[in-house]
Amino acid sequence: MSAADLMSVLLAKYLRYDFDAPDTPTNDRLVFSKGHASTLLYAMFRAAGAISDEELLTYRQLDSMLEGHPTPLIPWVDVATGSLGQGLPLGGGMAIAGKYLDRLPYRVWVLCGDSETAEGSVWEAFQHASHYELDNLTAIFDINRLGQRGPTMDEWQLDHYRARAEAFGWHAIEIDGHDVEAIDEAYAEATATTGRPTVVIARTIKGKGVKAVENKEGWHGKPLDDPEAAIEELGGLRNITVDVATPPTGDPHRFEAGRLELPRYEIGSEVATRKAYGEALAAVGSARGDVVAVDGEVSNSTFAEIFKEAHPERYFEMYIAEQQMAAAAVGLQVRGYRVFASSFAAFHSRAYDFIRMAAISRATISLSGSHAGISIGEDGPSQMALEDMAALRAVHSSTVLHPCDANQTAQLVVAMASLDGISYIRTLRPNTPVVYGPDEEFPIGGSKVLRNGEEVTIVGCGITVHEALKAADQLDGARVIDCYSIKPIDGATLAAAARETGKLVVVEDHWPEGGLGEAVLAALAEQGVSCEFRHLAVREMPRSGKPDELLARYGIDAAAIVKAVRH
Amino acid sequence: MSAADLMSVLLAKYLRYDFDAPDTPTNDRLVFSKGHASTLLYAMFRAAGAISDEELLTYRQLDSMLEGHPTPLIPWVDVATGSLGQGLPLGGGMAIAGKYLDRLPYRVWVLCGDSETAEGSVWEAFQHASHYELDNLTAIFDINRLGQRGPTMDEWQLDHYRARAEAFGWHAIEIDGHDVEAIDEAYAEATATTGRPTVVIARTIKGKGVKAVENKEGWHGKPLDDPEAAIEELGGLRNITVDVATPPTGDPHRFEAGRLELPRYEIGSEVATRKAYGEALAAVGSARGDVVAVDGEVSNSTFAEIFKEAHPERYFEMYIAEQQMAAAAVGLQVRGYRVFASSFAAFHSRAYDFIRMAAISRATISLSGSHAGISIGEDGPSQMALEDMAALRAVHSSTVLHPCDANQTAQLVVAMASLDGISYIRTLRPNTPVVYGPDEEFPIGGSKVLRNGEEVTIVGCGITVHEALKAADQLDGARVIDCYSIKPIDGATLAAAARETGKLVVVEDHWPEGGLGEAVLAALAEQGVSCEFRHLAVREMPRSGKPDELLARYGIDAAAIVKAVRH
Repeated sequence: MSAADLMSVLLAKYLRYDFDAPDTPTNDRLVFSKGHASTLLYAMFRAAGAISDEELLTYRQLDSMLEGHPTPLIPWVDVATGSLGQGLPLGGGMAIAGKYLDRLPYRVWVLCGDSETAEGSVWEAFQHASHYELDNLTAIFDINRLGQRGPTMDEWQLDHYRARAEAFGWHAIEIDGHDVEAIDEAYAEATATTGRPTVVIARTIKGKGVKAVENKEGWHGKPLDDPEAAIEELGGLRNITVDVATPPTGDPHRFEAGRLELPRYEIGSEVATRKAYGEALAAVGSARGDVVAVDGEVSNSTFAEIFKEAHPERYFEMYIAEQQMAAAAVGLQVRGYRVFASSFAAFHSRAYDFIRMAAISRATISLSGSHAGISIGEDGPSQMALEDMAALRAVHSSTVLHPCDANQTAQLVVAMASLDGISYIRTLRPNTPVVYGPDEEFPIGGSKVLRNGEEVTIVGCGITVHEALKAADQLDGARVIDCYSIKPIDGATLAAAARETGKLVVVEDHWPEGGLGEAVLAALAEQGVSCEFRHLAVREMPRSGKPDELLARYGIDAAAIVKAVRH
Repeated sequence: MSAADLMSVLLAKYLRYDFDAPDTPTNDRLVFSKGHASTLLYAMFRAAGAISDEELLTYRQLDSMLEGHPTPLIPWVDVATGSLGQGLPLGGGMAIAGKYLDRLPYRVWVLCGDSETAEGSVWEAFQHASHYELDNLTAIFDINRLGQRGPTMDEWQLDHYRARAEAFGWHAIEIDGHDVEAIDEAYAEATATTGRPTVVIARTIKGKGVKAVENKEGWHGKPLDDPEAAIEELGGLRNITVDVATPPTGDPHRFEAGRLELPRYEIGSEVATRKAYGEALAAVGSARGDVVAVDGEVSNSTFAEIFKEAHPERYFEMYIAEQQMAAAAVGLQVRGYRVFASSFAAFHSRAYDFIRMAAISRATISLSGSHAGISIGEDGPSQMALEDMAALRAVHSSTVLHPCDANQTAQLVVAMASLDGISYIRTLRPNTPVVYGPDEEFPIGGSKVLRNGEEVTIVGCGITVHEALKAADQLDGARVIDCYSIKPIDGATLAAAARETGKLVVVEDHWPEGGLGEAVLAALAEQGVSCEFRHLAVREMPRSGKPDELLARYGIDAAAIVKAVRH
């Protein structure tokens, strides 16, 4: 109820949206960052004639698209919200798409709660939106003073919000959020402001219009005691309909595309998989005009800089703000772009809630995590991802890939560009030998038997494939499986190996939990196969040191594999 | 080199620290948020006489405590850094400890890079430090204009930083970071400022003093081409030593402690485990003066509010800022407090990088995640943690617990208060029947056989224990194991069940990856036992609906268990 006046004016006069054709490229985007205000959003759909009274009353019932918090099951919702502080960074991504990629005049409107501005991600969004001069983005702050549990830190001190917004380079307008003329003027001013985004900071009253709850604590997310009386107080049953303006016509800009000419690496040469990622991504970008890259200020390490150099118009620097980076990726894919977001694998953990929510948004994004595991060496554990495969496997719709060589990396990058859902590729800092030819194929869900053997099977991925090969040289009858696709995993090949060799050693540069080892066990269990099993993984907090020293110290090198096999 | 002058003045005149006795409660705290400046920090230790030249030269060698980024393996380092944007929120936690708990006059100094201010967590720290009036906290911004890959968004526009800091309620001082008198004056002003924290915003030059690299791109984290010439240019080999001021004497405040009187719940009554968490935590807080609670603006849902009411001096509201909440917990534990940080289980994912880093800090913190899984019902998937067990299992030093009833919850909360490392308790929104008596014991790493049977074993945790019991009522010879300790897990009991019943059905309210099912498989593999295995978990993106409807729809209710067993 605090935001009803704000949204009424938006719907009646400013939003340009064809509810019959939500895919219209010129449609404005509306994001309810305060997803718990879903009743207001759904009432807007009802007023716009998009849904019926009957459908509105299916709210929160199983099989209704009108869930407790909005998700893209609803045709007019682009992104899921409900984890706070995400709407504005998501809207920033959409606004980047509009201004720099689509080059269409649509506007992105984001309704934010005041409580959620405590999330740092909101200020990441402020800084990036200002940096990218997103004058097509308007944030609407519903300053109703009350969070779920009590007052916010700033209550109705609108000047605090204004000072922060201005300090981050935004145009800010303070209004009474229940004065419809003031709202109208503010939106007019926002749409007329160029070169920077605008925030409308509206002083509102929680529960506005119903005295029993107005500005009172203890009513967050609770039904009214007397809803009939509240309806009377609000003016009685009405049947308000709104003619929503349709957007102008227009077609999105299209970037040129050509032939796919993947880099080709010679067998036996030494190349870092992160380098191959950058080179392959640049090649995919040349073949597909819809491919876009973002990076978190480490493009010279992730090699996203190779893409940037090749396709500067489709590269967006996200600086050290991984939450905004993930959100931008999700916002960009709303408009159909295939976004690759890269950072050190360890630092995607900063955006884990955004990745989780991306899955609820039914988003398609690709993540690249470089510098995985202890093989990075001297920089130490803060830079070593050892939980990333576990975290990313436990995301709905995810694909988790970990190539061991450059040609494999290149092929997997191509595959990722056509995968649905959240895909993740884990790459390595050090150079590794190229073991596959450039024309080898690597299906998602597949694996490669690199050595045949009948006595024991060694399963690795990434750096440990090379250790497994070295170990196999010292053993008789060792089969080596390169399990580059961790999710989905090649259960049939693993089951056959378990049956045929009776012994499996899985070795991974990752904590023991939730990574390759447990993925293999789950696959074997599903196949109904069991065998002797040894699991080599990083079990102590690693230190700084040379990569080889660390692989030895933490028991995932060739010597450790040989020892495990002999045991 | 950009921050060397800033740190020289600090070490020579302002820092009060007894390097011979790092545990002195009145010691100032120094946090290098830009952990990649570790060479500067270690040089300070050398200048202070804490380490020798020989030890300094072990930098980044295996077994040296002088890792690539600082960790608490070093006695004078409280927290690990290296994931950027974490030092200031961590320092905020230490400053809260100083001002509100220890009540000692120590000061917290945090050196931040400019690049890392793009992280939203920095602005969470700004807002919270101002809200808590942390005048014992000083941030030092080393504005050297250059990140790893190129210029920052704001370069040398110091007024941008100043406006933001002031807008968040801080005192801000702009200086030339190579003017030692200006630095001196700024620190004097910072220490004299009351009621709010101060940030010293210092314009500096990356590579200051060595013309070959000064203010040049492409030199981040790289060794110099000619280090000998650089030493000459910097003034030649010297042997600078600094007498660091020792802190005043003083003892921390101690909070009263009494007897532990845990809540007791009657078998058969219906209580939400989240409620039992709040009640137990309040009781533990009465028994132990070192127990502290923080919550992310959902204390009326997590029931941390019960602790807050009982121990208001030891409760700190962290609003909707889960990164700051986790960082505050880590900062507080530096001073020995046992911190319980609560939010919805889903929203700890927002702080996953902080939790990962907490493990590298060798921190002891307890996390409580309520509203886990689809059993929350209508609020929908954004509020349902379905990845939390996977994520938290893949944290070094972690313990993962998931009680199914109120008495079990209470006992586990007591146990958590004495556990080392990162402990996590997962609680439920709905009421569940009390199945254990109040004096039952629940060792960490244990499990409970709730029903004996020889035909099949059903393994659950949390809500699925109750579904397993209902299923067992419809089956002959079903053993039911309540696997409340997911990490460490009771491998012996599970192995015995596998051997004795030959069939295991694991059922969990979680994605299939990385949770209870895979933990059980890993335990069986380690025990060298195998059996028929079925795994029931949430395999589709859930919708809004009633809890019972959802448990049925997604195949983790009693009927699904019965079906799996019969299959």
